[in-house]
Amino acid sequence: MDDVSSALDSGLVARFATIVGDRYALRDQADIAPYLTERRGLWHGRTSMVLRPGSVDEVSQIMRLASETKTPVVPQSGNTGLVGAQVPDASGHEIVLSLSRLNRIREIDIHSNTVTAEAGVILQTLQEGADTAGRLFPLSLASQGSCQIGGNLSSNAGGTGVLAYGNARELCLGVEVVLPTGEVFDDLRKLKKDNTGYDLKNLFVGAEGTLGVITAAVMKLFPKPKGREVAFVGLPSSEAALALFGLAMDRAGSALTAFELIGQRPYDFTLKHAQGVVRPLAGDWPWYVLMEVSSGRSAEDARGLAEDILSAALEAGTAGDAVIGASLAQADAFWNFREVLPEAQKPEGASIKHDISVPLASIPQFIALAGDAVQSVSPGARPVCFGHMGDGNLHYNISRPQGGDDEAFLALYHAMNKAVHDIVRRLGGSISAEHGIGQLKRDELIATAPPMAIDLMRRVKAAFDPAGIMNPGKVI
Amino acid sequence: MDDVSSALDSGLVARFATIVGDRYALRDQADIAPYLTERRGLWHGRTSMVLRPGSVDEVSQIMRLASETKTPVVPQSGNTGLVGAQVPDASGHEIVLSLSRLNRIREIDIHSNTVTAEAGVILQTLQEGADTAGRLFPLSLASQGSCQIGGNLSSNAGGTGVLAYGNARELCLGVEVVLPTGEVFDDLRKLKKDNTGYDLKNLFVGAEGTLGVITAAVMKLFPKPKGREVAFVGLPSSEAALALFGLAMDRAGSALTAFELIGQRPYDFTLKHAQGVVRPLAGDWPWYVLMEVSSGRSAEDARGLAEDILSAALEAGTAGDAVIGASLAQADAFWNFREVLPEAQKPEGASIKHDISVPLASIPQFIALAGDAVQSVSPGARPVCFGHMGDGNLHYNISRPQGGDDEAFLALYHAMNKAVHDIVRRLGGSISAEHGIGQLKRDELIATAPPMAIDLMRRVKAAFDPAGIMNPGKVI
Repeated sequence: MDDVSSALDSGLVARFATIVGDRYALRDQADIAPYLTERRGLWHGRTSMVLRPGSVDEVSQIMRLASETKTPVVPQSGNTGLVGAQVPDASGHEIVLSLSRLNRIREIDIHSNTVTAEAGVILQTLQEGADTAGRLFPLSLASQGSCQIGGNLSSNAGGTGVLAYGNARELCLGVEVVLPTGEVFDDLRKLKKDNTGYDLKNLFVGAEGTLGVITAAVMKLFPKPKGREVAFVGLPSSEAALALFGLAMDRAGSALTAFELIGQRPYDFTLKHAQGVVRPLAGDWPWYVLMEVSSGRSAEDARGLAEDILSAALEAGTAGDAVIGASLAQADAFWNFREVLPEAQKPEGASIKHDISVPLASIPQFIALAGDAVQSVSPGARPVCFGHMGDGNLHYNISRPQGGDDEAFLALYHAMNKAVHDIVRRLGGSISAEHGIGQLKRDELIATAPPMAIDLMRRVKAAFDPAGIMNPGKVI
Repeated sequence: MDDVSSALDSGLVARFATIVGDRYALRDQADIAPYLTERRGLWHGRTSMVLRPGSVDEVSQIMRLASETKTPVVPQSGNTGLVGAQVPDASGHEIVLSLSRLNRIREIDIHSNTVTAEAGVILQTLQEGADTAGRLFPLSLASQGSCQIGGNLSSNAGGTGVLAYGNARELCLGVEVVLPTGEVFDDLRKLKKDNTGYDLKNLFVGAEGTLGVITAAVMKLFPKPKGREVAFVGLPSSEAALALFGLAMDRAGSALTAFELIGQRPYDFTLKHAQGVVRPLAGDWPWYVLMEVSSGRSAEDARGLAEDILSAALEAGTAGDAVIGASLAQADAFWNFREVLPEAQKPEGASIKHDISVPLASIPQFIALAGDAVQSVSPGARPVCFGHMGDGNLHYNISRPQGGDDEAFLALYHAMNKAVHDIVRRLGGSISAEHGIGQLKRDELIATAPPMAIDLMRRVKAAFDPAGIMNPGKVI
């Protein structure tokens, strides 16, 4: 472990420690280590100190001292982000501010359909709290057992529930934010409608901790569905998947609660590498869709709706084969298949990842163009295409050629990104649909976004954090 | 008509006129007059010139010249706003920039479910365009025959469709904005998911033209419901209305597409004063609800859902009486009743209006507290309470005491506002749920919002419009 003890003045370290108490001011590098790397292992930072405040007031005191001493602060909640936004830089000068002890659900209001939760509440805990109160909190991510609501908001998390319920931003009604100066901006409203000036809330949401520290939020709750059906569908083409989506949307509308596309390759990888996975369909298809419909009325109603959609799709030739989960266990098995799928790619060797979105109508075109582009960068490379198709969002990952060399393939990371992202841009898409910018895509964002957008974002950053102490080097 | 011809330098007027051409540079006060007053007659401005550009490039040139010469500009689309945001001040120095000639629907993409429309497209035209393409554009307002989409976005318009589909902000995927400098910020994306930096779009939406000029937008479209049922319900109390909402939400979820509360007084006023209105229910009730459910499946399905909700509500005593529109004509008649209702208040004399929201659970408490407060300000004054209850949004208007004096009553405007808004604030509500701030509520916003919020908004304003030429004196 590198020695970073001299990176921050020891007197300053002691002043910060006094705010949270010695026990919650981590200075031993063994204690600090878990806060410095993220799960993909792409980013490794250094720091002299991790602070774990236990109250909003302590967060405020920390930021006040940071502001006074120009000490850069990196907010962190569950440390599950995929773009390095929550990891400090290598200098050791940045302090990590962990929100994980702010983990109270302050209130669930079943009449207003809201939950007020602190930033450190684990997403799954929030889901369970809502469930116990007879409500649904629909944000759902692979990392929900460890990610926290503050990070979900700071990264404007997406996941599988966006189609019907919206992303973290759309689920958020109000925020409590500690500003870089330590001042507390209390905007914890439960209102669906509030036209009193500029939309400040949505600046903090998705800002990846670069404008302030979100310490709590009011989130929307929904009625719990009374019926839910999950179907696995085999399709002849990505065009057919688009047609199936149109058909399902037309019949189910907002009762269509998930529409996940899975290419043949990730499907096969999952069958091959994942433990305890059951083959959903007998035959092989170029494309698959996991589709969920939910009903507020009854299980029979959801069943009828799913059957209606699928029989129409089979009749039209849009779907080649389809099976509806016959039991809750089978429905869960279908979802499990989707959830273990990203991990099942690992045994196939190095992978170059993309988190893109394009207008829904352009998905088949994107898949065709990107497929060609990938081959031109690395002949034999294997696209592993899956994602939240209903949102226009694909995780378009590329596994190295079979039997190829990992390092040689990873040397093509930037060339591959550029080839794929050029197509995304040409189609009016986004190079980061749901994971954010962080450190990973900052240079690319600055280089390729319209200069006007970058200029406006810099003005916002300068207006909110003139000293530049909030998570420097991230986003912008 | 006052002479304002000297308010702006004649050379400058000529330079502006050259950009749009003489025909579209209105300088005759008779031509200008319609742009200077709004329908409530609360605000009367003056100007030397109304510019009616025919392209984004002309808007850009106008703003460039305005920026260079520090000429304040007031953007205006349909001129239906209720808070004076679209009206110039009395100085005559401000130029009115009308967007009404930018009235093209640029594209409807039925696969991506988006419409790209220019700022001057009339809302109803947009609804009809979507309908022709087999889609629903759900934003729906009383002024939809004349309001325009640019104004809808700048004011973050609400209306009756918010409950299931969201307000203008939530319906907007991308914007094209001409900045105060004349630069064009093109962010016309069709993406549901895009996490590439700060949320600039939502700053422009709801900014009432104070940060830039929205010239076009990408808006969401939805499948057209295949069935729709409208019911009129009589209820014993506002608590019962809250319970009915909970019951309907639980059973219908997002199929509950409207939930409008109507007090006994506006109900009676409408029966008394509105032309061609039919009494919806035989008996009299303290409260009424107009409830709409929609089905993506079939007319029978919507019928079954409406009947299910109402029979449960009648059995529980939540609803006292209820009738479902037996035909499309009767359904339309119920909606017509709701739509003519605000006008039916006029013959009862002067009115002091409020556009408030509170957390849904607090609606009965608000109604009780505000009722008392109104009496303490003006004994005998008559609350006319109605609105989009499903969104927590009430139009809480107060008619003067029966037989009272209009002027004496209107002298109490500020005292009444304060009494009602104090309760709103105490309940964590908003003093402008959907109409915005404009000139009407600017002083109150600045005086009563948390100083931190005002400070942050001022920083945003200064960052985007340092010269202060974009719609000065509005919002902040």
